[in-house]
Amino acid sequence: MFWYRNLIKLSTPIKSKTPITKNLLQASLSNFSTANQPPASAQAQPSGLGPTKPHDKPRVVVLGSGWAGCRLMKGLDPKLYDIVCVSPRNHMVFTPLLASTCVGTLEFRSVAEPIARIQPSISSAPGSYFFLANSTAVDTENHEVHCETVTDGTDTLDPWKFKISYDKLVIASGAQASTFGIHGVKEHAIFLREVHHAQEIRRKLLLNLMLSDVPGLPEEEKRRLLHCVVVGGGPTGVEFSGELSDFIRRDVHERYTHVKDYIHVTLIEANEILSSFDDRLRRYAIKHLTKSGVRLVRGIVKDVKPENLVLTDGSEVPYGLLVWSTGVGPSPFVNSLGLPKSPGGRIGVDEWLRVPTVQDVFSIGDCSGFLESTGKPVLPALAQVAERQGKYLAKLLNKICKDGGGHANGAKDMNLGDPFEYKHLGSMATVGRFKALVDLRQSKEAKGISLAGFVSWFIWRSAYLTRVVSWRNRFYVAINWLTTFVFGRDISRI
Amino acid sequence: MFWYRNLIKLSTPIKSKTPITKNLLQASLSNFSTANQPPASAQAQPSGLGPTKPHDKPRVVVLGSGWAGCRLMKGLDPKLYDIVCVSPRNHMVFTPLLASTCVGTLEFRSVAEPIARIQPSISSAPGSYFFLANSTAVDTENHEVHCETVTDGTDTLDPWKFKISYDKLVIASGAQASTFGIHGVKEHAIFLREVHHAQEIRRKLLLNLMLSDVPGLPEEEKRRLLHCVVVGGGPTGVEFSGELSDFIRRDVHERYTHVKDYIHVTLIEANEILSSFDDRLRRYAIKHLTKSGVRLVRGIVKDVKPENLVLTDGSEVPYGLLVWSTGVGPSPFVNSLGLPKSPGGRIGVDEWLRVPTVQDVFSIGDCSGFLESTGKPVLPALAQVAERQGKYLAKLLNKICKDGGGHANGAKDMNLGDPFEYKHLGSMATVGRFKALVDLRQSKEAKGISLAGFVSWFIWRSAYLTRVVSWRNRFYVAINWLTTFVFGRDISRI
Repeated sequence: MFWYRNLIKLSTPIKSKTPITKNLLQASLSNFSTANQPPASAQAQPSGLGPTKPHDKPRVVVLGSGWAGCRLMKGLDPKLYDIVCVSPRNHMVFTPLLASTCVGTLEFRSVAEPIARIQPSISSAPGSYFFLANSTAVDTENHEVHCETVTDGTDTLDPWKFKISYDKLVIASGAQASTFGIHGVKEHAIFLREVHHAQEIRRKLLLNLMLSDVPGLPEEEKRRLLHCVVVGGGPTGVEFSGELSDFIRRDVHERYTHVKDYIHVTLIEANEILSSFDDRLRRYAIKHLTKSGVRLVRGIVKDVKPENLVLTDGSEVPYGLLVWSTGVGPSPFVNSLGLPKSPGGRIGVDEWLRVPTVQDVFSIGDCSGFLESTGKPVLPALAQVAERQGKYLAKLLNKICKDGGGHANGAKDMNLGDPFEYKHLGSMATVGRFKALVDLRQSKEAKGISLAGFVSWFIWRSAYLTRVVSWRNRFYVAINWLTTFVFGRDISRI
Repeated sequence: MFWYRNLIKLSTPIKSKTPITKNLLQASLSNFSTANQPPASAQAQPSGLGPTKPHDKPRVVVLGSGWAGCRLMKGLDPKLYDIVCVSPRNHMVFTPLLASTCVGTLEFRSVAEPIARIQPSISSAPGSYFFLANSTAVDTENHEVHCETVTDGTDTLDPWKFKISYDKLVIASGAQASTFGIHGVKEHAIFLREVHHAQEIRRKLLLNLMLSDVPGLPEEEKRRLLHCVVVGGGPTGVEFSGELSDFIRRDVHERYTHVKDYIHVTLIEANEILSSFDDRLRRYAIKHLTKSGVRLVRGIVKDVKPENLVLTDGSEVPYGLLVWSTGVGPSPFVNSLGLPKSPGGRIGVDEWLRVPTVQDVFSIGDCSGFLESTGKPVLPALAQVAERQGKYLAKLLNKICKDGGGHANGAKDMNLGDPFEYKHLGSMATVGRFKALVDLRQSKEAKGISLAGFVSWFIWRSAYLTRVVSWRNRFYVAINWLTTFVFGRDISRI
């Protein structure tokens, strides 16, 4: 660190106007040179956080920062545990509002909550950490997780490998978008699961709007550029189609008048849209979407090419923007783990959300499912389920530690109390401006309240506004909605 | 367009649950296939907007969307002219506040103003357009500009070439950051001129903060990752250094407590910092920056490597983030134009901002300078100069059109009235939290008011708040400042 201490010495105010003594600077800095050495990361062996000692706080390692992991970390008591989170992103995405950010109704930052705000101890407590990294393997024998830093296009850095010993491990790394093995989906379609997906959609939509205005472009090419195709008629696909058609009617018609007649939205679904909702609500959604200009097409995609997609009946649909939202499946990381699996290939857990074959490993959220032996169905991949599981597990882990079982192998024969029970609170989806669906039935077969229209839209907005995690983001979401209402959506392409 | 009309037919509500007739869909879509054809753009010849007819509105073509171009478009009367803007970005950047966005004090969108909001006719009037494109050449003989669309990483699109005929052409395409031919600057340093630069700086800063927290990383590598080096001590470099040190003292110390002692800022300048300001203000800035932890180093950079830079005296300075703000020079586009040049290689203009050797071509902003023959000095590359020139030229062009000289070659011997006169209103720069410099002298030698401290900081904020172009952005800048004050800066890395 010689170079550094001497650099500080040189930093006295330069008002004296004496030139910096070159020899001093040279002498002090010359023995620091990373350029001709191998990078520091290549010299050292993988290192990390070793096992905790019996008188230390036990360590909970959380893999992932989605609904499940973040709700868990929020509920864990930092006085009982050191909390270590490993995730490739340092924020939680408020997924139900993500579709609104693609067209500028909401700002990207309003739907992203930094983990340090959800669990402040992670950035300040001495033994708690957030690591921007991917977990590559779990060694359940030695109670260790293997990780690798995310370097994200920084070409001068090699990923740094390290290991973390855990007392309790919670795998909440989520699922990944399903492509059903269809060729070209990964290359040409955009998913809608992360903030960078929404950013990509927004940039591409605005690019296509501007490119289609260029003089001399053939009519067909204009229509292709401005044909937005959404594949998948679940809540995400329907909400995105609704936002898009509202954007077209409110903003494109005013700000892109030259091309307004060329832009169209098509929603392709193999079965029924919003299949988890009440029939009456589904008919309402279909009517409303059709009225606002969204074309609903029933079809199955066979192949995706750079400028068009092919349906199973051979017909080709040209597109300028293709958004893919057909549900999720297990990630390669989950597939690679030597743990028991639930139906559907998720990590199998028992009624207490434990992986029963090994000690101290739990799994929650979209990556986990009840084992067949529990006799319970695998729960749907919903924010609601993940959030409830995170809350339950935080309470359970706090109890385990209070009962003296916080350290590795310390809870072997402990009575864990009540198992996890899931009660569905209902589903919500918006279908465009001032219109939404609220289905408060506990299951598809049950009876209960279902609403459609302005009142539901109001419930939808209020529900989300009170759930956005921090006061800062609640405030920003409200401000974003207000400015969109007053000034229209933001169309700068940055 | 068969595929398209038929797709509409299919979009009747699917509540009837009858499957879509496959043959119909196939028949209707099969004759549209872009996959096996060359892209439409490759088939057609370059086309564009032809010359205006004598009874049409004349057309002003503006190249660029910076301070000069945008102020001009704002002032042009859309009843007199059709306005066509060609620029690779569809918004104006409020550059004086750009440094604040790098650390999350302000949001990116708060400093970007869509051109359609500055001059609404550009997106709605029948003959006015905004084209997301670069201009590649100017044919002054035929009154034509050659353009090429920006496709920006969209691998399936070839750039589309087109020509635009102009009655009046205003070149306001700006300058580009100077590297002084130093090796490695373009590859490893980040400039601070566009919103995407600020985004890159923010992402890299947060990445380095998180990477340096990883267990087992050597001390030297930690210090390197968290060493932020700014080259260039003009207002941009000083403001960015001030913002960065404030971010470190306010936010890093609270949210990244594990690494807070490793992060440092060094500002390297070959001569004096803030050389255009009063001596007293400069001393104040030096004192304040040093107090808040910025190291000021006098030195000249010789070479930039991926992880360190080399000064002319041979000393090496390791860095994790390198920001380059050493001023601007002519862009390759300006160099390629066969027009007379001012000292310094800018497009040479006369007292009325005309290029005197050709008809109907004007140039304003950082890309233009007074010809030596005018006896006037080349004005500095400041937002203030560009804005004043845009305002003047808008008035002049409106007058020309009212006097009947709007069409090509129509203003040959016209009396243009008063020439452009520049009066310097003073300079402002912030040097961190609650501290700024305001120098209201008209030139370096003149006498006048100069202020430093809280009052100037208040003037600085008020001045910018009233200048941010639209009410929407004024509102957002105020809201951003308020939330930063209340909640701290946003640290989610999206």
